[in-house]
Amino acid sequence: MTELFSPRRSVEQVEEGVELAPKFDERGLIPAVTTDFASGELLMQGYMNAEALRKTIETGEAHYFSRSRQAIWHKGATSGLVQRVKELMIDDDQDCVWLKVEVAASGASCHVGYRSCFYRRVALGDDSAGKPLEFTEHEKLFDPVAVYGNTPNPTKL
Amino acid sequence: MTELFSPRRSVEQVEEGVELAPKFDERGLIPAVTTDFASGELLMQGYMNAEALRKTIETGEAHYFSRSRQAIWHKGATSGLVQRVKELMIDDDQDCVWLKVEVAASGASCHVGYRSCFYRRVALGDDSAGKPLEFTEHEKLFDPVAVYGNTPNPTKL
Repeated sequence: MTELFSPRRSVEQVEEGVELAPKFDERGLIPAVTTDFASGELLMQGYMNAEALRKTIETGEAHYFSRSRQAIWHKGATSGLVQRVKELMIDDDQDCVWLKVEVAASGASCHVGYRSCFYRRVALGDDSAGKPLEFTEHEKLFDPVAVYGNTPNPTKL
Repeated sequence: MTELFSPRRSVEQVEEGVELAPKFDERGLIPAVTTDFASGELLMQGYMNAEALRKTIETGEAHYFSRSRQAIWHKGATSGLVQRVKELMIDDDQDCVWLKVEVAASGASCHVGYRSCFYRRVALGDDSAGKPLEFTEHEKLFDPVAVYGNTPNPTKL
């Protein structure tokens, strides 16, 4: 049986080759960057372990690894906001994947209720200390309390 | 003097507030996702430590933290391919930043010579084991040997 992931044998193989040879970090994770297939907007950034990456490839639906819950996380299993992977890319040294997805239902990807997790802009410049973040989304697409109920919030301090 | 980064006091402050309170992981790093300001294309994913994020904000030029060199990395210092940050976003739980950049010179962001680090597509489906990666860029924008010479390749096995 052919394995899904190849061993990493050389820099040339990893950078210029056609074998999928992902690198998982010291935690066993690879970062995943997820954008909207149609608009190109960055929706979220998460992590996958080998099993989550395998499930994502085999099912065509985004699976991540939740660091707070230390478990595979089939995105949308609770909220219905499943991410259908239209295209999956891997980077030069194969230590990051890029998912281009279509999101089901309301189209939101953020547990706070916004479309994208990236709904605030940071001020730039050497006088930016103390300047407030600027909201770039102003309406939530869903009510997180109605969708998630008493599920623990994944945000950790 | 106002500090650039606020302490993380509550989930509500982090998710719904206007204070910049980034979370650095157990390695002292925050992932950074970098897209092209004009096209929206994902160019690269890297990491920043607190100092790299501060320098990025203050100078408006992307600074990362190189895990292989364990040093601050002013992107473009060697290659000339400086990334001018047009917009900087932070995510819901403030443990990831999104840089929208304009790249100087050839416009490449990948040390292998391609425009984007993500120049290969992964096959999807439950029969994808053994299927080759598909190149989506076919021409390098620069010659890495001419630009980097004998600098050690950042790709690690």
